[in-house]
Amino acid sequence: LSRANLVTLLSDFGLRDTYVAQMKAVIIGLDPTVRLVDVTHEVEPGNVMEAALALESAWGLFPEGSVHLAVVDPGVGSSRAPLAVEAAGHFFVGPDNGLFSLVPASGPEARAVRLHEDFRPVSATFHGRDVFAPAAAHLALGRPLEELGEAVEAIRTLPLPEVLLEPGVVMGEIIHMDHFGNLVTNLRPWHLEGRKLLGLRTGPLLRHSVSRTYSDVPEGECLFLWNSAGRLEVACREGHAAMLLGLGVGDAVGAETD
Amino acid sequence: LSRANLVTLLSDFGLRDTYVAQMKAVIIGLDPTVRLVDVTHEVEPGNVMEAALALESAWGLFPEGSVHLAVVDPGVGSSRAPLAVEAAGHFFVGPDNGLFSLVPASGPEARAVRLHEDFRPVSATFHGRDVFAPAAAHLALGRPLEELGEAVEAIRTLPLPEVLLEPGVVMGEIIHMDHFGNLVTNLRPWHLEGRKLLGLRTGPLLRHSVSRTYSDVPEGECLFLWNSAGRLEVACREGHAAMLLGLGVGDAVGAETD
Amino acid sequence: LSRANLVTLLSDFGLRDTYVAQMKAVIIGLDPTVRLVDVTHEVEPGNVMEAALALESAWGLFPEGSVHLAVVDPGVGSSRAPLAVEAAGHFFVGPDNGLFSLVPASGPEARAVRLHEDFRPVSATFHGRDVFAPAAAHLALGRPLEELGEAVEAIRTLPLPEVLLEPGVVMGEIIHMDHFGNLVTNLRPWHLEGRKLLGLRTGPLLRHSVSRTYSDVPEGECLFLWNSAGRLEVACREGHAAMLLGLGVGDAVGAETD
Repeated sequence: LSRANLVTLLSDFGLRDTYVAQMKAVIIGLDPTVRLVDVTHEVEPGNVMEAALALESAWGLFPEGSVHLAVVDPGVGSSRAPLAVEAAGHFFVGPDNGLFSLVPASGPEARAVRLHEDFRPVSATFHGRDVFAPAAAHLALGRPLEELGEAVEAIRTLPLPEVLLEPGVVMGEIIHMDHFGNLVTNLRPWHLEGRKLLGLRTGPLLRHSVSRTYSDVPEGECLFLWNSAGRLEVACREGHAAMLLGLGVGDAVGAETD
Repeated sequence: LSRANLVTLLSDFGLRDTYVAQMKAVIIGLDPTVRLVDVTHEVEPGNVMEAALALESAWGLFPEGSVHLAVVDPGVGSSRAPLAVEAAGHFFVGPDNGLFSLVPASGPEARAVRLHEDFRPVSATFHGRDVFAPAAAHLALGRPLEELGEAVEAIRTLPLPEVLLEPGVVMGEIIHMDHFGNLVTNLRPWHLEGRKLLGLRTGPLLRHSVSRTYSDVPEGECLFLWNSAGRLEVACREGHAAMLLGLGVGDAVGAETD
Repeated sequence: LSRANLVTLLSDFGLRDTYVAQMKAVIIGLDPTVRLVDVTHEVEPGNVMEAALALESAWGLFPEGSVHLAVVDPGVGSSRAPLAVEAAGHFFVGPDNGLFSLVPASGPEARAVRLHEDFRPVSATFHGRDVFAPAAAHLALGRPLEELGEAVEAIRTLPLPEVLLEPGVVMGEIIHMDHFGNLVTNLRPWHLEGRKLLGLRTGPLLRHSVSRTYSDVPEGECLFLWNSAGRLEVACREGHAAMLLGLGVGDAVGAETD
C-alpha cells in the first residue's frame, strides 16, 4: 500500500478549544513532514452518525494511502475499543462506536486492529491526543497496521435510517442539513431504478421530477436534485430550504412511482 | 511568471460541512506538495460583494505566483462562466459573478480564460470541487493559463457603493462589520485629499478628526481611524462599535470639509 | 536551540475576517517552507487570560524550537511592548500584556526582547500582521532572538484566580468552559496533596471523590475528574455541564478535606 503522508482530521471538538491543535502537535512530533487536512471539527458533540456521514462524503477524494483520524468519542475511557483499520487503500483511526459505518472500514475487505495504548502517557479523557493521534502518525510514517494492535474480527456499525421500498412508493428521510440549509436525504439513484417517478414530496414541497441544479427554478423556489455526493437533496434557489420549508433531520421524503 | 506552489481558498461553505475538505482533497490529489491557506469560508452564503472585499484584503500579501481560489457561487450550474485569470503576478479562479471586482483580475492588464470543464466528472452543484479546485491545482503546478480554457475579453464586476464628493461634504457608507464589531467604510484617504476635514459623522458618533489607533480614546469611546487596509473605520476602544452605535452595513458615513 | 520550522497561531480574530490569513501570508512570504498550525482564533475578543490558558494547554506538545505567535492585543498601538521570548526551548511572540503568564516565557529562565518594528510598514492597528508575524517568521528561519529587538528584564503577568488553602477546605474556581460545556477549574492535584478528600462541591453538584472518566457515572450524571491537562474539571456524561448545573467561569469549587 502506498503512503500519502497525509492525515485528515475529523472531530466534534470545535475550534475554540485547543484540542485539535493538541492532536496536531502530537502527530507532527512523530512525523514532522506529514500533511494535515481538517475534514470538519464541527460535528454536533457526540453525534456519531453525523460524523459517519461527514467522513463518507470526504474520504474517497483523498489520495490512496491517506490516514483518516476521526474522533467523536462520547465513550472515551470506557471499554469501547480504539481502532485502526485498513480498507480500500486508506487507513481509518478512531473509536469503535459506529464512526466507520459508511466507509470501507466496515466492509468485508477491511483489516482492523484494536490499538495498543502505549504510544504516550494516556489520559482517561483524551484518547484523540493520546491514542488515536499517535496511531495515525505511525500509519502515515508507514508502520504496518499489525504492529499497532491486535487483529479484531468485526467493528461496530450504526445503520442509516432505512429506505422503504413498496409498490408505488419509496420512502426515505432527511439525514443532514448543510450550512446553506440544504436537506440531504438517504435516497440514492438506485432506490428509484426501474420505477417511473410520478412525484416527490417532503413537507409542503411537491415536485414532479428531480431537477439538475439550483438555477432550474426561479429564485426562492424549492426543488429536489441529486447532489454532489449522489444523494437526493431538497434545496431552494438562493434560499435556506430547512427554514423555508420548516423541515429538518428525521423528516420524511417520499417518491410516488408507478 | 514564478509559481508559489500555493493555493488560497475562500468560500461561503462554512467549516461544518466537508465541502472545503473535498476541494482540498482534489487539489492535493493533483499537486501533492502544494501549500493550502484558508482565507475565509465564513462569507455570508451567496454574498458576492462580501467575498470580493475579503479577497481584496488578503490576496496582495501572498507571494507572487499564488493561486486564489474563490467560490461563492449561487449561480452554480447556470450559464455563468467559470474563470481563471492572471493579473499582477497572481492567479484568480472562480465563477464570473463579480467575485473579482476588487482585485487586479478585473483590471485592464488581466488575462482571463473561461475554464474547460473536463478536469474530472462534473456535478451540477459543486463546481468548487469539480471545476475550480482542479483548475487551481493545475495553475499551482505551472500549467499555462491558456491550456485551461478559452480566452474571454471581459469579466463581470460589481460596483462598491459610490462615494459622493460634493463641495463641503464627502458621503460614504459602511461596507463591512468585522469580528470585533468594527465598521469598515468605502472611504479612502484620497477621498479627503486636498480638503480640510471639519468633522466626521456616522449615526450618533461625531468626531473632529481621524485618530491613529484604538487607544487614542478612553475605554468604551468610539473613533474614526484609517484601518490596516487603508479604509476609514469606525471603532470603539475595547467595545463593539456596531452594537454600541447601533450601526451596520449600508449606514451612511459623512465627512464635513471646507 | 534546534528549529522546528513551525509557527503556531493563536488570536481573538475569529475565522470570518481575513486577519489570520493576512498574518499567514506575511509569514509565508518570509519563510516559504514554514509549517503553520492554528491553536485557536476563537478567544473571546480582548480576553487575555483566556488566551493565556489556551496557550498553556497546547504549547508544550509542539516540537522543541517551535514559535508560538499569540495575538490578543486590545492595546495595539499603545505603549505596551511587542515581545519575543525564548524559554524552555520554544519561542513566544506577542504583546506584553499577560498573554504569556502561564508559559515558561514568564519564567526565570526566559530571555525576552522588545521587538523592533521595522520588519515592514507598520499600521497602527494590526501589529499581528506587521510586527508579530514577521518576527515569528524570522525566528522560524533561525535568526537569533537578539537581532530582533532589545533585551528586556521582565514581562507582564496576570495572576490566575488564587486557590484558597485552609484547614479542612480547599477553594478554587471555574476558569474555562470548553466546547462540550465541561468546566475547567484552577485546582491541580498538588492542591489536595497530603489531605484526605471528604467531598467536592460546586453549585448543586456534590461528589465524594474524583472520578477517572466520563463513563464512570450513568448518562446525564455529573462528576469531577482530573482532565487531560491536569486540572480538576466538572463534567456531565454526554451532557453540557455548564447548562445542566447552571455554572460558568468565576463560580466557586470547593473541596472538603480532613
